[in-house]
Amino acid sequence: MPSKGPSSITLVGAGTIGLSFAALYLGHQDACLRVTICDTRPDLEGYVRSRLPGLLGHEDDAVLREWMSSGRLALEPDLPRAVSDADIIQEQGPENVEFKQKLWPAAEAHAKPSCLLWSSTSGITATVQSEAMADSSRLVVVHPFNPPHVMPLIEVVPSTSTSRRVIDETLHFWRSLGRKPVVVRKEVTGFVANRLAFALLREACHLVNEDVVDVAELDQIVEASMGPRWAEAGPFKSYARGGGDQGFPGLMRNIGSTVQACWDDMGMVNMGQDWEAKVASQIEDAYGRGGPSR
Amino acid sequence: MPSKGPSSITLVGAGTIGLSFAALYLGHQDACLRVTICDTRPDLEGYVRSRLPGLLGHEDDAVLREWMSSGRLALEPDLPRAVSDADIIQEQGPENVEFKQKLWPAAEAHAKPSCLLWSSTSGITATVQSEAMADSSRLVVVHPFNPPHVMPLIEVVPSTSTSRRVIDETLHFWRSLGRKPVVVRKEVTGFVANRLAFALLREACHLVNEDVVDVAELDQIVEASMGPRWAEAGPFKSYARGGGDQGFPGLMRNIGSTVQACWDDMGMVNMGQDWEAKVASQIEDAYGRGGPSR
Repeated sequence: MPSKGPSSITLVGAGTIGLSFAALYLGHQDACLRVTICDTRPDLEGYVRSRLPGLLGHEDDAVLREWMSSGRLALEPDLPRAVSDADIIQEQGPENVEFKQKLWPAAEAHAKPSCLLWSSTSGITATVQSEAMADSSRLVVVHPFNPPHVMPLIEVVPSTSTSRRVIDETLHFWRSLGRKPVVVRKEVTGFVANRLAFALLREACHLVNEDVVDVAELDQIVEASMGPRWAEAGPFKSYARGGGDQGFPGLMRNIGSTVQACWDDMGMVNMGQDWEAKVASQIEDAYGRGGPSR
Repeated sequence: MPSKGPSSITLVGAGTIGLSFAALYLGHQDACLRVTICDTRPDLEGYVRSRLPGLLGHEDDAVLREWMSSGRLALEPDLPRAVSDADIIQEQGPENVEFKQKLWPAAEAHAKPSCLLWSSTSGITATVQSEAMADSSRLVVVHPFNPPHVMPLIEVVPSTSTSRRVIDETLHFWRSLGRKPVVVRKEVTGFVANRLAFALLREACHLVNEDVVDVAELDQIVEASMGPRWAEAGPFKSYARGGGDQGFPGLMRNIGSTVQACWDDMGMVNMGQDWEAKVASQIEDAYGRGGPSR
């Protein structure tokens, strides 16, 4: 990798996540990244012009037009042309295996040898995506926490074939942008952040379904406790503190039986059950039909 | 309740939680609350003088001595004398049923009729605690998120006998201090905040035990994603946003199968298993023997 790092990124797929990454790269003053958006939708330019400025905090598309005429931002529906000059190709296309297994052999055939290949998938592993590639060592999953132009986390999930060079350059890039990349060592279902969040969500849905609290009250509870706590110190660090001089083992001696009692009583709700309608209806009552505005 | 609200609070039990509440009440400039600390430990004054100033951000006990001579802070080991003038009696004694069932009849016998009776318990319900009381309508659980002088959440957990007046005055008091009280409608094991946190903790321990990430990496993941997210908008509000115009139902249509796949794959670890030693050892490596300093 040249010491100055990647300067040209091609985003394949201009959905919500793709535009959010575009906003992150274009909005980062110091990095001076050139962005190419590759998507086959016929209204690509109008769509990008109407959606992207808002993510960048701009009222109109004046800066966008400036970037497009200076070459900082390009729209290119043709994959070979879109990727040929890229230092990074990052896909956030449809979440289906066929799309991704077809994309990567085409992308690697037209990419520079040094180009990093990233997938923003939330669940289709690099091992599965790279099956038809000539060189599977180039691909790594780079999973954001939505929306990526706001949230600092990037889960870097290599396959067993991903090369050390690709992992290191990927971590270096994200750290240079001031983000928080963390390597996930095994390709587990849902990776780490979503698994943790969904574990809490499951119990949250159970408690609402049992009328212990409603959705707005549950949100208030989290916003006034775990949210600010874990923004500053994650769960293990927090619980270790809670044990004082005795650390985590001391805390578990004190509260271990309560923890186990809560685990034994956890509500194992599943998708497709009655709680879904109840939760959705309470959310609509509390925050409006389309969810809360930001 | 006089319109000016409670002005005198007696804390029964001067452990970590008791002192933290003392710091909250004494440190709140506008509220002008008088605090009596009731504890039978023989070194009560030395203990309070050595621990409380630090919680208030003071380097020495000068202000404490001033408050003690002006009557703003009193130490009183004798329960009847400690509670006779209180507007609120708040206990954070040992977490055992016998202690609490014995305390409340004694406390109510010497308390003013209007006095609110609060327990900071994390698990022994007001229904159980009030069994031997003459008037069980006076008692309500007021469960903080540790440490209470920092964290805004108060879970207010009434028994079915707790009176509306007691609930309303309790909520009013906490709101007047700028805190975030939320009523929990059923006396479920662990109440709400701990159940949610422990649900996430269980999956966190599983992922560490499986070597997917280590404890420091898991903390980094939470600190860069759910923490800041949920500090601003709780899980339901966040997921409703994630569905855009389609709200929560739209999001579940998109990611419901991934959510279920994660639920199906969740690690149901229990206390007393091997993961405990592994987690404790990694915490000690990452943050030191007694947990991280604040």
